[in-house]
Amino acid sequence: MDLATYLHDKKIVVENTLKDICTSFTTTPGILRNAMEYMLFSNGKKIRPILAIAACEAKGRSADDFLPCFCTLEMIHTYSLIHDDLPSVDNDDLRRGRPTCHKAFGEAVAIMAGDGLLTEAFRVLTDSRFTERVSPKVSRQIVFEIAHAAGTEGMVGGQVMDIIYENKEGSKNILHYIHSHKTAAMLRASVRIGAIAGSAKTRELKSFTRYGDAIGLAFQIMDDILDVEGDEEMVGKKLKKDANKQTYVKHYGILASKYKLEQLVDEAVKSIAFLGENGRVLEEIARFIGNRIS
Amino acid sequence: MDLATYLHDKKIVVENTLKDICTSFTTTPGILRNAMEYMLFSNGKKIRPILAIAACEAKGRSADDFLPCFCTLEMIHTYSLIHDDLPSVDNDDLRRGRPTCHKAFGEAVAIMAGDGLLTEAFRVLTDSRFTERVSPKVSRQIVFEIAHAAGTEGMVGGQVMDIIYENKEGSKNILHYIHSHKTAAMLRASVRIGAIAGSAKTRELKSFTRYGDAIGLAFQIMDDILDVEGDEEMVGKKLKKDANKQTYVKHYGILASKYKLEQLVDEAVKSIAFLGENGRVLEEIARFIGNRIS
Repeated sequence: MDLATYLHDKKIVVENTLKDICTSFTTTPGILRNAMEYMLFSNGKKIRPILAIAACEAKGRSADDFLPCFCTLEMIHTYSLIHDDLPSVDNDDLRRGRPTCHKAFGEAVAIMAGDGLLTEAFRVLTDSRFTERVSPKVSRQIVFEIAHAAGTEGMVGGQVMDIIYENKEGSKNILHYIHSHKTAAMLRASVRIGAIAGSAKTRELKSFTRYGDAIGLAFQIMDDILDVEGDEEMVGKKLKKDANKQTYVKHYGILASKYKLEQLVDEAVKSIAFLGENGRVLEEIARFIGNRIS
Repeated sequence: MDLATYLHDKKIVVENTLKDICTSFTTTPGILRNAMEYMLFSNGKKIRPILAIAACEAKGRSADDFLPCFCTLEMIHTYSLIHDDLPSVDNDDLRRGRPTCHKAFGEAVAIMAGDGLLTEAFRVLTDSRFTERVSPKVSRQIVFEIAHAAGTEGMVGGQVMDIIYENKEGSKNILHYIHSHKTAAMLRASVRIGAIAGSAKTRELKSFTRYGDAIGLAFQIMDDILDVEGDEEMVGKKLKKDANKQTYVKHYGILASKYKLEQLVDEAVKSIAFLGENGRVLEEIARFIGNRIS
């Protein structure tokens, strides 16, 4: 198995499912749909739905019945990018190599496009058109996992702390709160809902969760490293702008950050060793996250 | 039955349930929780959860098991107010007689408080702590109803059209789109999920929906009338500011607006005549909406 091919193939599957989902916005105002699709189909890695697919397949189950559910992870991630980029938040003009949503559609429409993506994610998760073969019980579990991870004790909580500790001394505790909430919570949830869809038992789910926690933190630390050492064109956004933020590099230095990243990748790989050959894709994704350049 | 007493008593029940819900934000950053509670417990009517309670009780079922579910309607309504008031949207400084959320907490935190309330609504709807006696099937139905009504084919869609047709000629068609989506969609959903919780049959649900549509439109037309004729102190927000918006008064005049309002209240009352004595509260709420001064 070649990971690059796997990621490429699954990205196409995810994009096609997202296109299907967008055809269900039949009476949505045109400008709103355009703004949502503009960001949804910009050149992202689609790593969250892919992680869910990989976790589900690692349990020996096809992800086909759950594709729309898994794609809501990308809808929620996309909403968070749109709102993070707003002038009163991170004030970014460039995202994935293109003008940010509010630069292209205006601030009010960008706010509503984010709200729309977030709300429609929960509609898709419970829409009979997209969940025909998902039991109501599993539906409820997945909605809870995603809402909890995206909410004020998860992603939104991390984002608020990230903003209010900008230009402040901060501390390692604050850094750890931000890091385990802002990005890691949704990455962990991606792995967990894949495992839940694959009928993972309680003990297995704990191991998947440890894997998700480890790659989630690794992902954010890599973001901090890329901000300092990355190539702006490759990464697709303005770099060297996190100097006033709580970053791993700021609190631990660049070498310790790279060492921590390596440790987290190892921890992720060990957590899913019980899957044997079935865990190969997840293992390679963990290594990929530890080596990514964009 | 005295409606004022009913509304007062149920408002307390709703506020207490919302307080319960807020105690579940245990690791939420303090400033975020404060911003959410600031708006959630400002002096609103709590009419959406009360409508759901009234519809559920009209079917002869106690609303007790569904109170947290019904209160998510208020969380979503509150998020929509916070985002609508933002400088780049309606730019309002005053709401329910107090500074708006972004005036009190800053724009970034206000955006996140809205995002948080919206996301946590879906967490509460699927959290076993709050849905112990709600079957997974009904949970899924309620999440779908709310997400669809709040989404891009509902409230968010209406809000976008409201913004982009500001300072434009517009048309009666545009007005009807805005009116049936921006406010009416969520009011209709409130009635529907109450009826669903009360195990309404398909034909009954249609009648509840007609009632919800009628009071939803009536509510918005009354808003348009209050903007022209209301008392600023009673209404609790700046009035006479919708002159550049698509309003019923603008397209039909004040007399035709009042006539339409009367017709809609009659239509609402007729739609639930089948409930007999059990429908008395809903009937009085419809008349209340047609006569409200705030």
